[in-house]
Amino acid sequence: MRLRNVKNKDQILSSSPFFIADGSSYKGKWHRLFGNDRPIYLEIGMGKGKFLIENAIRYPEINFIGIERYDSVLARALEKVPEDLKNIKIVRLNAEYIEKLFDHEISLIYLNFSDPWPKKKHHRRRLTSLEFLGKYDTIFQTDAVIVQKTDNADLFAYSLCCLSQYGYVLEDVSLDYQPTVEDANIETEYEERFRKLHLPIYRLIAKKKR
Amino acid sequence: MRLRNVKNKDQILSSSPFFIADGSSYKGKWHRLFGNDRPIYLEIGMGKGKFLIENAIRYPEINFIGIERYDSVLARALEKVPEDLKNIKIVRLNAEYIEKLFDHEISLIYLNFSDPWPKKKHHRRRLTSLEFLGKYDTIFQTDAVIVQKTDNADLFAYSLCCLSQYGYVLEDVSLDYQPTVEDANIETEYEERFRKLHLPIYRLIAKKKR
Repeated sequence: MRLRNVKNKDQILSSSPFFIADGSSYKGKWHRLFGNDRPIYLEIGMGKGKFLIENAIRYPEINFIGIERYDSVLARALEKVPEDLKNIKIVRLNAEYIEKLFDHEISLIYLNFSDPWPKKKHHRRRLTSLEFLGKYDTIFQTDAVIVQKTDNADLFAYSLCCLSQYGYVLEDVSLDYQPTVEDANIETEYEERFRKLHLPIYRLIAKKKR
Repeated sequence: MRLRNVKNKDQILSSSPFFIADGSSYKGKWHRLFGNDRPIYLEIGMGKGKFLIENAIRYPEINFIGIERYDSVLARALEKVPEDLKNIKIVRLNAEYIEKLFDHEISLIYLNFSDPWPKKKHHRRRLTSLEFLGKYDTIFQTDAVIVQKTDNADLFAYSLCCLSQYGYVLEDVSLDYQPTVEDANIETEYEERFRKLHLPIYRLIAKKKR
């Protein structure tokens, strides 16, 4: 996600207790950092953070980590984190290096409205490519669980195939996702916008036994 | 599929060399009936037969069997089969009894624009329910291959989940299927109609090793 430049972004980043500039130093130590053994849910490409932060507020029994590569986007997210939140960390990282961040510590990955990389030659950059699924194997604690939402039909079809071919089982698939009360869906910024335009949202839940 | 009554349907059915009223007597003997060991592709719910017949004409090295339950629909299909076609049989059957028809003889199943059975209590009647997938295990010769096309998003999402949960791997998924030359797609009657209305066609190819 790109965003217009935030002028005081350096100051916001350096002063936030939720921000981690170099996450690799916590590899294998995230539970210690959170001070508990609760599950860690990861959002790759957390954008402006609405989804991650609302989840952290709603589910104090889960630890949430968001990663994002752009400082201006990180700053916008960090500004929104309530001061007293104990179960959230926000890390600057290009998802390509996700293996450097975790060693079998993650229980669930959220992929929300990820870059669709429409050109065929860029498909391996998609966050559900076989290459990325291979990386995720090294960060999942036990079973792998991926929850993806997107407005992009082509990315979604690609994800279904890659996940299936990599050994994931599709637990749930929606081609026009209308959240139920049980889902307790939290909308991302993109999702809000697309719903207002009555565009379909695609969602999947995929699991792979260790 | 339902169709208005065809008055002379009994006569059409009884006089057609392609029609088989009681297919169960050929169980385990279909290759003998075709007089060769070539693969048999099955279309469940073949409707008025355009897809099946055009396939049989185009691929003489494959044997095609279509099943359909309604006599009037069967009659409309049988009228269209070219007289000299050697690789096609059309069987009257309710898909529920598919196991009675074949004993490990089928190489591929086509499910085209099947009844979506929208009500939850009827989902097990869908041709991709776990129940049907279990039946198909008994009719596939070796590996299982299912190719599904539909205009119904809900049926399609359901199919993706059931197939995945039953051990199928998704080889290809399209949420707005635009056939390529290599696909050599043959349109069904429904598909023609939906394409004219610019409605999306969903298509999947799923495989399961024996």
